[in-house]
Amino acid sequence: MVLNLVADLRPADLARIVAHLPLADARTLFDWIPSEQTADVLPELESALRGDLLDDLTSPEIAALLDQLETDDQADVLGDLAETDSAMADAVLPQLEDAADVRQLLTYGDETAGGLMSTEYVAVLETATVAEATEEVRRLAETLDDVYVVYTIDARGCFVGFVTLKRLLLAPSRTPLAKIAETDVVTVEADLDQEEVARIMERYDLIALPVVSANGHLLGRITIDDVVDVIREEAEEDLQRAVGITGDEEISSSIFAVSRGRLVWLLLGLGGAYISGLVIVGFEDALQVAPVLALFIPIVMAMAGNAGIQSSAIAVQGLASGDIWRSDLVRRIGKELGVALINGLVLSVALALIVVASGFGDDTSRLALTAGLALMVVIVLSTLVGATVPLALSRIGIDPALAMGPFITVSNDILGLTIFFAVATVLYL
Amino acid sequence: MVLNLVADLRPADLARIVAHLPLADARTLFDWIPSEQTADVLPELESALRGDLLDDLTSPEIAALLDQLETDDQADVLGDLAETDSAMADAVLPQLEDAADVRQLLTYGDETAGGLMSTEYVAVLETATVAEATEEVRRLAETLDDVYVVYTIDARGCFVGFVTLKRLLLAPSRTPLAKIAETDVVTVEADLDQEEVARIMERYDLIALPVVSANGHLLGRITIDDVVDVIREEAEEDLQRAVGITGDEEISSSIFAVSRGRLVWLLLGLGGAYISGLVIVGFEDALQVAPVLALFIPIVMAMAGNAGIQSSAIAVQGLASGDIWRSDLVRRIGKELGVALINGLVLSVALALIVVASGFGDDTSRLALTAGLALMVVIVLSTLVGATVPLALSRIGIDPALAMGPFITVSNDILGLTIFFAVATVLYL
Ligand SMILES: [Mg+2]
Ligand SMILES: [Mg+2]
Ligand SMILES: [Mg+2]
Ligand SMILES: [Mg+2]
Ligand SMILES: [Mg+2]
Ligand SMILES: [Mg+2]
Ligand SMILES: [Mg+2]
Ligand SMILES: [Mg+2]
Ligand SMILES: [Mg+2]
Ligand SMILES: [Mg+2]
Ligand SMILES: [Mg+2]
Ligand SMILES: [Mg+2]
Ligand SMILES: [Mg+2]
Repeated sequence: MVLNLVADLRPADLARIVAHLPLADARTLFDWIPSEQTADVLPELESALRGDLLDDLTSPEIAALLDQLETDDQADVLGDLAETDSAMADAVLPQLEDAADVRQLLTYGDETAGGLMSTEYVAVLETATVAEATEEVRRLAETLDDVYVVYTIDARGCFVGFVTLKRLLLAPSRTPLAKIAETDVVTVEADLDQEEVARIMERYDLIALPVVSANGHLLGRITIDDVVDVIREEAEEDLQRAVGITGDEEISSSIFAVSRGRLVWLLLGLGGAYISGLVIVGFEDALQVAPVLALFIPIVMAMAGNAGIQSSAIAVQGLASGDIWRSDLVRRIGKELGVALINGLVLSVALALIVVASGFGDDTSRLALTAGLALMVVIVLSTLVGATVPLALSRIGIDPALAMGPFITVSNDILGLTIFFAVATVLYL
Repeated sequence: MVLNLVADLRPADLARIVAHLPLADARTLFDWIPSEQTADVLPELESALRGDLLDDLTSPEIAALLDQLETDDQADVLGDLAETDSAMADAVLPQLEDAADVRQLLTYGDETAGGLMSTEYVAVLETATVAEATEEVRRLAETLDDVYVVYTIDARGCFVGFVTLKRLLLAPSRTPLAKIAETDVVTVEADLDQEEVARIMERYDLIALPVVSANGHLLGRITIDDVVDVIREEAEEDLQRAVGITGDEEISSSIFAVSRGRLVWLLLGLGGAYISGLVIVGFEDALQVAPVLALFIPIVMAMAGNAGIQSSAIAVQGLASGDIWRSDLVRRIGKELGVALINGLVLSVALALIVVASGFGDDTSRLALTAGLALMVVIVLSTLVGATVPLALSRIGIDPALAMGPFITVSNDILGLTIFFAVATVLYL
């Protein structure tokens, strides 16, 4: 009964259920599932849980499971396994049907085109006919689930282009592929970063992307389903960096792993906030003379932080999507300056009105003027810092997303408080 | 020369160049490009720029361009046009070859399955043979660029399943499709939200998704390239919401649009920060007695804000990806509590050590104890607020991403400062 229910589930759904079960139940369920399904569930699991589930199995059993997967997934599972149990990974690898391919795939970096590609594709000589290509598709049909195109290569084994199955279906059977092949094809090399791979497939609306070596040999192909996962992961990483999480926190990460990923930046933030605190203590005399100035500490901090993180988020997104070019620097700064001047003006007026309405301080109108003016300067500078730091980081090869958490908030808090108290000392005291 | 260079560019690259040119130059370039390319560039442009470029053209000219696009893109371009020039949109629509389809597509919400689907697909009766289906593919080959599957429908016109072109290519020509069709197929209805569409295609690794009516009729199909754009857009929206940007800021948005999108939350933040300021002013006496307490204002604010935004980002991501189920509430809170206790402990000890090392205040060890204890409470409560608010919002049908900007930072600043001064008053004064 239960088994029937489970048998109808798709691998991704099964993985989801397995991930929500206590380990003992997950093991039981995993044992119940027919082996084709077990295999397909493996790549969908997070690596820690997958490791726990594979723990029970012998190396031939694991190899038999992996043989049912495409080579990219085999390499991913095996690569993860090698991290926790390298002896087992070494034992499994030679037992695989596609051992040579998988060994090759394992040499590429995880977050590169080579780390994403699989070796499941149909490639034939461009001199072959439609009938011969169809025969090759038939020969590989069992092992290849998704075939949409046949790649063509020349006599030296170099990648030339592709023929879609639609064309293969419609062309007369003796047509040579060279006559109907699409040869204006985007390809990438194996060491290209996965973010660039994602941008390319996204930009050109590709469902598969051939990977070639420096001298043009076809090495593998990347399929869009894996790149969709990359896009999700990179976006999650950017959001996590924006909130100061280092590493890669997942729902299943252990409490200690989560704690570690969040602590780095909290500790840095504590250090930065301590400096902000010293700025305030440095203006202790001003605060003793005019205690009402303390009212503006959270306001300056909130506004400096928010304005900066807003402009930095836009810069990070523009760089990630490719919509911002590095040559856009001047135009970007000009635009952000315009936005900052408008928002600074509105917020300063709003703050001045709040001060007047509240009737705080000895000289309300001077306090309102001081606070408004200081806020204006703070907003403009914070916005520009936020807009430029990601561009600067990107130019020197650092992930601009890092700017959002660590750099911007700390520096803008310190900057904002210093400006505020300096302006207040000059104008109000 | 230039024209030759341009002629080799892909539509997305051309769109990128056009977007980076001054409007007059963009118009010139747009006029130069052959009309097939012009058409393909249109859907890639942001709507404001597209509107400017179409401004020159007559309704038959626009219709001729749109006829070269798939119906989903026709509907998108026309829908945008209707917002700025509804008379022109009304004039173009009846001149389109697929006017009926496009009119129907325009009835669906932009961010729904219906708003994403196109009507370019091959569908045949399941009683048809492989030869007949192949003939239908041939008939439609000119108008349909990407065909990977043939959909099968029953006599009542209801969706049944699909046959991949691979199977069509390999099966004997007299086989009825019903014999080789895949019928365990995921479909969606037209009013499903695009985020759910994206989750489904992502989860099941689909490159196309049939859209059916409530009574099972095939209405259209969604292709993965458009869903990739949805995933990017939704991730950008979440990051923008996390930093308090309302609406949808784009690199090309006008200064005033950008200003407006950022101001809403800056003004709310100003109000919230003012309340935080009032909390501080409310403890003015404490600050007069022990001015050193001001040192901790930025520390408490930074830690409360960061800890809360970290846990809320994880909750938002888990809800978006489907990794967090609503039933996980208790488990989530337990885990976040664990993380908060560890991080709170580490940060409190670090802060206490900083205080002792700095030798601030009259009674350094009591100050260290007070600050450490207050920080511990602040971290734990802020983390829990961050972790639970998105789940609560999602339960009442509000986008949980909204929690990150507005709710968490303001409430945690106020909460944190109140707790800190309350603890300090009791323990230190
Ligand atoms: Mg890999
Ligand atoms: Mg990366
Ligand atoms: Mg695209
Ligand atoms: Mg597109
Ligand atoms: Mg794959
Ligand atoms: Mg991840
Ligand atoms: Mg990244
Ligand atoms: Mg649409
Ligand atoms: Mg949405
Ligand atoms: Mg997937
Ligand atoms: Mg997958
Ligand atoms: Mg489309
Ligand atoms: Mg969303």
